Amino acid sequence: MSRLLTVGAAQMGPIQRAETRSQVVARLLDLLHQAHSRGCNLVVFPELALTTFFPRWLLEDANELDAFFEKSMPNADVQPLFDEAKRLGIGFYLGYAEIAEEEGRSCRFNTAILVAPNGDLIGKYRKIHLPGHAEYEPQRPFQHLEKRYFEIGNLGWPVWRAFGGIMGMAICNDRRWPETFRVMGLQGVELVMLGYNTPEFNAAIVEPGYHRMMHHYLTCQAGAYQNGTWVVATAKAGVEEGCMLIGGTCVVAPSGELVAVASTLGDELLSYTMDLDATVPIKTSVFNFAKHRRTEHYGMIVERTGAILPPA
Amino acid sequence: MSRLLTVGAAQMGPIQRAETRSQVVARLLDLLHQAHSRGCNLVVFPELALTTFFPRWLLEDANELDAFFEKSMPNADVQPLFDEAKRLGIGFYLGYAEIAEEEGRSCRFNTAILVAPNGDLIGKYRKIHLPGHAEYEPQRPFQHLEKRYFEIGNLGWPVWRAFGGIMGMAICNDRRWPETFRVMGLQGVELVMLGYNTPEFNAAIVEPGYHRMMHHYLTCQAGAYQNGTWVVATAKAGVEEGCMLIGGTCVVAPSGELVAVASTLGDELLSYTMDLDATVPIKTSVFNFAKHRRTEHYGMIVERTGAILPPA
Repeated sequence: MSRLLTVGAAQMGPIQRAETRSQVVARLLDLLHQAHSRGCNLVVFPELALTTFFPRWLLEDANELDAFFEKSMPNADVQPLFDEAKRLGIGFYLGYAEIAEEEGRSCRFNTAILVAPNGDLIGKYRKIHLPGHAEYEPQRPFQHLEKRYFEIGNLGWPVWRAFGGIMGMAICNDRRWPETFRVMGLQGVELVMLGYNTPEFNAAIVEPGYHRMMHHYLTCQAGAYQNGTWVVATAKAGVEEGCMLIGGTCVVAPSGELVAVASTLGDELLSYTMDLDATVPIKTSVFNFAKHRRTEHYGMIVERTGAILPPA
Repeated sequence: MSRLLTVGAAQMGPIQRAETRSQVVARLLDLLHQAHSRGCNLVVFPELALTTFFPRWLLEDANELDAFFEKSMPNADVQPLFDEAKRLGIGFYLGYAEIAEEEGRSCRFNTAILVAPNGDLIGKYRKIHLPGHAEYEPQRPFQHLEKRYFEIGNLGWPVWRAFGGIMGMAICNDRRWPETFRVMGLQGVELVMLGYNTPEFNAAIVEPGYHRMMHHYLTCQAGAYQNGTWVVATAKAGVEEGCMLIGGTCVVAPSGELVAVASTLGDELLSYTMDLDATVPIKTSVFNFAKHRRTEHYGMIVERTGAILPPA
């Protein structure tokens, strides 16, 4: 038995601040056409795929900040992508900054949507693990103000039956947290799609730059293996407004093996044909959760947020 | 600031069934002396370090089975190890099969203890994630009857202040489960000690043999990084009663980097000097749990044991 799915991981090079939405969408369309020519059923675009990674700046003017957000999706600028994907019969994951009117106020989220080959919206995910900080930190060469500009995602990690399997979404820093993958794993996820913008330089800690890529692969591979799921992780990469973003767009098999990796820091369509049934051997043996998990010993994972040390 | 600790990972080659406890303890003493000569403060011996890995056989005779278990610890056979470690001022982690009289009956556990340099028992851990199966499976070239011979550990994953830091223990298959590391991470663990007996051939699934080592490193590295802890993992390795056990005894830094690996499949003392303060940068930045964890979205991790799929 096999359930084949050809996925395109549509890595993007940098998006400079002066680039317009139309210019960006033209790049997405080019990647979409490459995906079509390689038989892809599904394309995974990066996190915040329509703009530069604006949390690197303190933006105190509300209009200046709002310009990076989408008030509706699709909107006029992005409509050509939706139209062309529908015409080609390709579904896609797209990350963008979202303003939503909820509970009588404007809420900002770091969001990804999953769109079906027929153009229908399948689902939405709003980033839960926001990294960085909320206040301006003058000692940083660039800011990472995700905690200032976005609210914590309020949709959990749902999964959806689509593309012949069970699909889940996460965004960037979410991959570092095993809880992210486990919550989807407990719903039988077979493919986790994840877009990211990861700076090579981590201002929060002194560490060698190569650790950034190691951590990216490590957490994607562990999340895949420990839940028996495919992972497609797509970068925005290269030097964006003077800040180097790691590439490393990749496909990870349910065995945890890294089976495809992008080779540039620019716009690059990495395509891979995966068998969703390759999830079954892992999910029914070593990670047969029903047989092996011991939830009576896991309580602390939800009972405490921060670490509590033993008495000195 | 630095808190240096020199640890010896005392990998063992195979223990054949005919080998006596005294013969095994002589090997442990030799490894202990090597550790002393390299300045180790702490030695990590493997899982079930006193006997062959007996769950590979169906043992229906209770006396035959009990012969692999320790009714007290230390006991006459193991006392020389305790005495010599105390004389040298070296603490140790030791894995063994335990029979305990609890609640009016004999309970069998796959156990590890942590002994202080002065000979005091610091703590005990009983393996929670028992792999394998409970019933004889004739199609297997060898059995993996841990679920038959051992009860689920009933001590959780406590941590202890010792050796200048916060110490935790796990055993073999526990390392594959991010919950193991997270529960200790939520108590500030700085060094996770783990012994293992991992067959190269996994009868439960068709997979390439090199995946077994990949999975071992992957899960140790992810557990270390995602909790900002050192990990010392010690194998029983080599061809034991016709069954190849992987080696790969290793030390993983809190960055997730593999910083030392054994190079044989035999008795080998791998020593490494670690700075327990190297845990601090990770624990206070990317894995500052208090700042970044979102427990309101983690409920499923304890609310369900097995996966529940979305409606078809």
